[in-house]
Formats: sequence, C-alpha cells, structure tokens
Amino acid sequence: MSLYALILAGGVGARFWPRSRQLQPKQFLSVFSENSLIQDTLNRIAPLVAADKVRVMTRFDQAHLLREQLPNLSEQQLVLEPFSRSTGPAIAVAARLLAAQDPEAMMLVLPSDHRIQDQPLFQETLSQAIEYVRTHDVLMTVGIQPSHPETGYGYLLFDNQPLQTGLHPLYAVRQFVEKPEIEAARRYVQSERYLWNSGMFIWKAKTLLAELALHAPELYQAVMQLPDNQSDPDFDAQLKTLYSQLESGSIDTVVLEKSAKVCVIKGFFGWSDVGSWESVYQLSPHDNSGNVVRGDAFTYDVSRSYIYTPQRFSALIGVSDLLVVDTEDALLICHRDRAQDVRLVVQHLESTSRGELC
Amino acid sequence: MSLYALILAGGVGARFWPRSRQLQPKQFLSVFSENSLIQDTLNRIAPLVAADKVRVMTRFDQAHLLREQLPNLSEQQLVLEPFSRSTGPAIAVAARLLAAQDPEAMMLVLPSDHRIQDQPLFQETLSQAIEYVRTHDVLMTVGIQPSHPETGYGYLLFDNQPLQTGLHPLYAVRQFVEKPEIEAARRYVQSERYLWNSGMFIWKAKTLLAELALHAPELYQAVMQLPDNQSDPDFDAQLKTLYSQLESGSIDTVVLEKSAKVCVIKGFFGWSDVGSWESVYQLSPHDNSGNVVRGDAFTYDVSRSYIYTPQRFSALIGVSDLLVVDTEDALLICHRDRAQDVRLVVQHLESTSRGELC
Repeated sequence: MSLYALILAGGVGARFWPRSRQLQPKQFLSVFSENSLIQDTLNRIAPLVAADKVRVMTRFDQAHLLREQLPNLSEQQLVLEPFSRSTGPAIAVAARLLAAQDPEAMMLVLPSDHRIQDQPLFQETLSQAIEYVRTHDVLMTVGIQPSHPETGYGYLLFDNQPLQTGLHPLYAVRQFVEKPEIEAARRYVQSERYLWNSGMFIWKAKTLLAELALHAPELYQAVMQLPDNQSDPDFDAQLKTLYSQLESGSIDTVVLEKSAKVCVIKGFFGWSDVGSWESVYQLSPHDNSGNVVRGDAFTYDVSRSYIYTPQRFSALIGVSDLLVVDTEDALLICHRDRAQDVRLVVQHLESTSRGELC
Repeated sequence: MSLYALILAGGVGARFWPRSRQLQPKQFLSVFSENSLIQDTLNRIAPLVAADKVRVMTRFDQAHLLREQLPNLSEQQLVLEPFSRSTGPAIAVAARLLAAQDPEAMMLVLPSDHRIQDQPLFQETLSQAIEYVRTHDVLMTVGIQPSHPETGYGYLLFDNQPLQTGLHPLYAVRQFVEKPEIEAARRYVQSERYLWNSGMFIWKAKTLLAELALHAPELYQAVMQLPDNQSDPDFDAQLKTLYSQLESGSIDTVVLEKSAKVCVIKGFFGWSDVGSWESVYQLSPHDNSGNVVRGDAFTYDVSRSYIYTPQRFSALIGVSDLLVVDTEDALLICHRDRAQDVRLVVQHLESTSRGELC
C-alpha cells in the first residue's frame, strides 16, 4: 500500500502583496529562509514519502515556477489545473488519478505554503497517522493544539474518547467550525475540545472516492469520467470542461463536514498557515527592539516592525508596529494590526485595471 | 546705484534625504511645484532685480545643476566656491567682487531654498527695504513676524522706536538670538519684540566691506587680496587658498552680531526656511485626511502623512503622521515628530562609507 503526497500549490496569497503576485504566489516566495515555502514543504516530507510518489497540483500559469523551483519533479508528477476551484475539486481529481494508477494508494494531502516549527515532531505525528490510515478506512485530518483564540482558523470539535491514545492521540471528529468570532474562539480554546484545522489530510484514495460518491455524487461522477492519466491527450480539455461546470468548494465543505469517517490526530509541532505579513513577523526571529529586518536598513528608534528591503537602502526613524515590504515596483507600509487589509490593495489594483502590479 | 541679487546656493540639505544628496541638494529639488526652489527664488525677485544683475554662489560640484536649471545665467553671473565655509566668507567674497565691478553696488542677499507665501507682499517689503538702504548706510535684515514659538529659527530683538513707520516698519536691531529653547521662544513671541531671522539681507557692498574691516579684519584683508573678477585665471586658486585658511562662520556671527548698523524690516508675507520634510508637509495643500500625496499611492485609513512616491506604486494602510519619501535607490519612513533626525541617516551613510547614497 504505497503512500503518495499531494501538495496543493494553486493559491494566490493576496495578503502577501507586494511580494506575492498572480504569477508569483506566496508558496513560491522565500519568506523564512533561502528556500521557498513549497521547497520547505517538500523537504519536510522527504523522510516520509518516496520522491517519485510526490504529486504537486497547481494552475497552468504557475507551472513554470514549479519546474524552476522543483526541477527534480517529472512531468508525470505535476497535475495542472486550468484555473482554481479550491481544494474540493482539486483533491477529488488527484484521488481519482492516484486510484486509477494504484488502487491501494494512500494520500498525504498538504498545503504548500505553511510553516512548521518542529519538523521531527511533525514527521513523527504524520507517521503515526499514516499507520492508522493504513489499517482503517478513515478520513484523517491533522488538528493543531490551539495556542490562543485565533479567529483566522477553522476549528475541529473532537470526540470525548480517543480512538487511539499515545504521544499523538487520535479522535473521531464531531464537527467542523468555520473561522469563529473572538468570543467563540475563546470558548473553544478554554474547552480543550477543539483543534485548529490545519488543512493537512491523510486517507486512502479509494476511501475518499467512496465518501465523495456518498456525499458529493456529482463531483464523483465528473472526476470518474476523466481519463485515467493526466498525460492522456484529452485530459486537459476534459478537466477544463469539468472545472467550468463546477462550483468552487473546499474539501471540508464538499465532503469532510458530511462524512462520518473523519478523525483527527492531535499535533503539537508548532504550525502556522502564514496567513499575512503579521504572521511572518511573528514567526521570524526578532532583534532586541523586536524588529525583523531583511535587507539593507538603518533603523533609529524603531520597534516591533517587519522590514523587508532587499533591493534598496531604507531608513526608518521613530516608528513602531509597521510592516514594510519594499519591492522593485511597489511598496507596502502597513500597520501590524491591519495585515489582513493588504488584500484591499490587490482589490484596488484589480478594480483599476493595474494587473501588472497584482 | 545698481541693485544686485546674490543668491546663496551652496547648501546641502541633509534633512531632505533621500531626495537631497551631496550632488543634488535641496535648492535644486522641485518640492512644491514643477519648479525647483532656486528657480522659484529667482522668479520671485525678477520684478525687483534686472536679470543681468543676479549672481548665484554655489560649490563647484553643483555648478552643473545651476547651469541646467538656470540656463539664462551667464558664466559671469556664477560665483563658484571650492567648498562651503558658510555664509560669512561667501557673502564677503561676493561683496568684494561686486564692489570692484560697481563701487555703488547694492546687494540683496537671499537664500535659494526658502518658501514665500505672498509674493506681491514679499516684493513690496523688499522694495521698501531697498529704498531705505539706498539712502542709509545700514545692514538691513528681513525679520519675520513669528506665528508660533519656533525653536528652529534664530530671533532678532528690535528697538522700541521704529526708524521708519509704514506698512512694513523698520527698526534698529538690538540683539541676535540663536535658536532658543521652547520656553524662551514662547517669551519672545509673547513679548512682540522679536522677529525670526530669515537670512535675507540688503546692503551696499561698500557698507558691508567697511563693517567687515571693523569687525572681521582678517576676512576683510583676505577677500581684498582676491582678483577683482572671478574670471581672472588666478581667482579659483586664490579663493581655494583663502578658504583653506578660513573657518566657517555665518554672516551673523562674522559681522552682524557685532555691528551697530544692523536694522530690520518687518515681514508679514509668510515665510519658511523649509527646514525639513515636516515643513514641506505643513506648507503643502492637504487632502481631507490631512495627507499630502505626490505620486502613485493607495491610502486606506491613512491620515496626516506626507507621501512622496513618484516612481513606484506605494500602498499605505492604517498609519498616520508619517513622512514617506521614496526614491530610485533609497526609502525614508519617518515619524513626523522626528523630521529633524533625518540628518542621522546621512551621518550613518557617511560613517559607513556609503557616499553613493548621501
């Protein structure tokens, strides 16, 4: 029973403007190290998944970035979408292809743009989940022990009784909760019955397909009509037709929220979806003034700020709590409390037909 | 008795970094309009001084900027210094040259980088002062009615009794005061006996030379040994030798503070020495949020800020009271209260041998 990895790399990352652009999204950026986030993602799972069993899914117009950053991937390992329909259709298509090629395929589904702090613990947690899935027909999610009442994440309510105890206990999932208001988030955290939904999953391809047949029969029928292999000359055209007829939907709403087979493994390895420049600031090492400086900057009475200025000299005086991101053709200066509003810049640029900047 | 204008254009403007540089100082920048400050300065006095009677003094390494921005000036109208020794030596040299060429020359001495709000009133004030100087051997300063207790300007204490009344009263000057602390500045303003020292002067060249002979005999002797004309083949070398032996000193400390012939005309025309980005902010028209935007910027919840971004798109979110100056190779982000500290950036760049940026 072979284990495959499916790396989802179709995102846009509008909150990472001006570094992320339509044609250079967040997962392809070097945010914390020399490696891009997607390179880090693949390195992290190298001990778990054989190199030839990795699949990466992205949009056609980002394929060149994949080939550039991951030159060891063969074309057979890329699954290209005509445009994005969120994770539901993407994962369904990938499960259908893997099941056709290997009826016993297990899938480890991972976003390409997250940050993991303790990689050995991450690998240990996934190993245990993989072993469980090998012997159980379940849809395994990875839940993160919440460190604070975060309103930017979805939550999973898990069952009282663990399915399996041990270092990383496993539970059945009772309920999926969308991003909550702050009061609800506080209740969730204090109850110790909720975990953050990390968007990482493990299951057999055939288990997912069976659950799709049950809970999303149209999507199931549609993906089963695709050619067996993405190298089939008709594949791209048929996928485009299929996507044109589909609505966007996350794998959560498409199947997980409806399935009785969902369980969760509790992760303690330090995780972030790196949702904004603020989280990049939080996750980066700070100097004595609480600043994170990447590039060539002079700071005087500057505190608690993120400063990215790799191409030009920047001088900051008497400011605090700023996110400053300086690129070739665009500059962002944003209060740290307003990191979520960076997407408004992208909306502004789109609405004023200035696509070259977004 | 001909009137000459002497425009002093040798300044550096370190507080205008990153727009001002050693080789592109403040007076050559377009700050408020399409014209540079020095172009505005010359335009302002065109009704008062014949075009061929204008002299401009600057450093050799800035002469190309003068020729570029003021193409109508002949080489005879430029007086070039090997390096800067502040206004004392510069004005003494110019007075010596003018007196040699025209013994009855009157000089209107003006900085090249100031801002005047009411130009007709400015011209009227200067006209009256010029008329007075024509018939009196005085060193006339132009004092500005203070609008607030400014600690960035020097002050002039004037006599009780006016020498001449009228729209722009004239007084003898009792005392020069260096930039005061805030408490002293408040007393000065409330007393109504002090004016801001604008650095604009009117006198006969021969009056100044006579006062130099009395109060600064070494400087007087030195400048009298220079050739009569700056086109003399020996002039540049001799001026360089002279400057090497001189200390820097403002015309105030060199002669005005010691002379009994100093008087002042009261100006109400709205004046600023445009000493920092903060004063540029103050003097520029604001939008409804109190912002001044020059260039291509998206602002969201931004207030009371100056944003200069002519070459790139900049986005600002949730910030206030910032000075943002974005140039080709350097970026400044400074709290408005800290505009005076911009010179620290230039000091930092000099001390780290990064002259290309300052």
